[in-house]
Amino acid sequence: MHKHGLVSAVMAGVIGAFVFSATVGAQTDPLPSWNDGAAKQAIVEFVEAVTTENGADYVAPADRIATFDNDGTLWPSHPMYTQLAFALDRIRELAPQHPEWKTKQPFKAVLDNDLEALAAAGERGIVELVMASHAGMTTAEFEAIVSDWFDKVRHPRFKRRYTELAYRPMLELLEFLRANDFKTYIVSGGGVEFMRPMTEKVYGVPPEQVVGSSIKTKYEVQNGKPVLMRLPEVDFIDDKSGKPVGINKFIGKRPIAAFGNSDGDREMLEWTGAGEGARLMMLVFHDDAEREYAYGPADGLPNTKFGTFSQALMDEAKQKGWVVISMENDWKAIFPDTPK
Amino acid sequence: MHKHGLVSAVMAGVIGAFVFSATVGAQTDPLPSWNDGAAKQAIVEFVEAVTTENGADYVAPADRIATFDNDGTLWPSHPMYTQLAFALDRIRELAPQHPEWKTKQPFKAVLDNDLEALAAAGERGIVELVMASHAGMTTAEFEAIVSDWFDKVRHPRFKRRYTELAYRPMLELLEFLRANDFKTYIVSGGGVEFMRPMTEKVYGVPPEQVVGSSIKTKYEVQNGKPVLMRLPEVDFIDDKSGKPVGINKFIGKRPIAAFGNSDGDREMLEWTGAGEGARLMMLVFHDDAEREYAYGPADGLPNTKFGTFSQALMDEAKQKGWVVISMENDWKAIFPDTPK
Repeated sequence: MHKHGLVSAVMAGVIGAFVFSATVGAQTDPLPSWNDGAAKQAIVEFVEAVTTENGADYVAPADRIATFDNDGTLWPSHPMYTQLAFALDRIRELAPQHPEWKTKQPFKAVLDNDLEALAAAGERGIVELVMASHAGMTTAEFEAIVSDWFDKVRHPRFKRRYTELAYRPMLELLEFLRANDFKTYIVSGGGVEFMRPMTEKVYGVPPEQVVGSSIKTKYEVQNGKPVLMRLPEVDFIDDKSGKPVGINKFIGKRPIAAFGNSDGDREMLEWTGAGEGARLMMLVFHDDAEREYAYGPADGLPNTKFGTFSQALMDEAKQKGWVVISMENDWKAIFPDTPK
Repeated sequence: MHKHGLVSAVMAGVIGAFVFSATVGAQTDPLPSWNDGAAKQAIVEFVEAVTTENGADYVAPADRIATFDNDGTLWPSHPMYTQLAFALDRIRELAPQHPEWKTKQPFKAVLDNDLEALAAAGERGIVELVMASHAGMTTAEFEAIVSDWFDKVRHPRFKRRYTELAYRPMLELLEFLRANDFKTYIVSGGGVEFMRPMTEKVYGVPPEQVVGSSIKTKYEVQNGKPVLMRLPEVDFIDDKSGKPVGINKFIGKRPIAAFGNSDGDREMLEWTGAGEGARLMMLVFHDDAEREYAYGPADGLPNTKFGTFSQALMDEAKQKGWVVISMENDWKAIFPDTPK
């Protein structure tokens, strides 16, 4: 080998080593969309603690349960909850079959696009809209209606399908936890049968790991074929103190990590934190009006009905060591560059 | 090598081959406690069909959902449902705190060991007993009570812990399905929080894969510590037409295989069978008075309230191709030789 050959070989080695280490570097950061900071550090340290065998905080894989709220935690809840947008679209679509809605609230408000009257109808009004738009068909028919809606409709501001607006840092977090043998669950106030058609594709969370609100269903045999009819009757509300109830009912184990973004997640985080051993509780704080939204009376941001983050929640987070994620400071990117 | 050496080498080879083939033989029969026959053949052919890639009946692992009833399907339901035995023990234990039970039915019947009066109290009476004995404590306290009971109490006839009476052929079946990437669920009329403390150890089914009846719980913070209080109020009855409802609610996917033993499982098997593609529906028939029990009006056996197998169910099974398992003829053994 002459001199040039030797230099080339050494250079190739150096370059090879560089490429190798760059590759390893990329592989070893499982959370590339997270800026270095307290939030990212809390995640990485927690996962290391519970997965280190013989460590003080080791947790067996079977008990590595992580629960995620959906609206405002995994995807936007503004300008309104995605499911409310779906319900309003359904009401408009069903209106020709219901001439009485032209004069009956809260339906009139929807058909007139009168957001003030809609807001005045309150939660009771929303329940009425959901019952009218989500019941009266089989579970299979409802799934087809939901899937079709997700395919056709675009978010009013971001002009993408709702299913293409999952927060990129949270997708990385879900993947990172699963790569460390966590079982990831969605525990949302949203309707379980509204979420299930899309959670596997969007979040990698299969239907059986989705806990949500529900209406009752009834088994019937129609023309010799069994169906489940959706009834206009509330079965379970998976919000606030309903979240630990739902976790116990559907999972039967206490999570060791829980992620939310609003007052509706408070009890889920309390319940998670009350278990023994290492725990991770985090809240996504919407403080990025430019890239997404900024709201929540905590820290003086504007109020909202779609994901309230109260000062009381912020105080409890500080007191209990829950980690608050600043979308503006902790996240390099909000949405995937190339939506699925 | 002299002659003896050669013979020894050949013998060693023969013995080696024999040992090898015996080992392989044992490994390739995943259901050693099942006699050769239609039931075993149906299982093996079904599993082969849904796991053969590019085959007409192939099912992706994520959709390989199998649901099992518990009482009478995975363990005995005689002389009474295990959970009823637990409830009666609890009533006796709590009696000193409830002097009024001495004169009030159905409690008086329990304390007097008056099975006739207890039967006369009917299902409503049983619900009253369950409410009185299963509510009024936290979920954690109830779990400890149940675990303690399972540890201390023995089955009146078999003199083993109830958790040591899982049917050996069904344990092999559960294991065989899981080895073929099935997710195995229990879908039982029994209480979900009565089963969860033991299903992982006994059946290899984790808490989150147990669907059952439930009473309501309420989230409370007691002395700064969050608890879930068990309320004397029915939440969900996972029996008969409640089984497909529960499957849809908790799993969100239709099973491709379902196993039961009584009229309470009829709708679960119908719902399972109504899906497209290969399906396996099986019913355990209790016709073995010598080794276990024989009951069910079908085939003229004595009637029972604990796992009725009606003639109508037998007729539907024949009409729809559901496989009826004869405990006497299909099972080589009923219980594990060496209980866990």
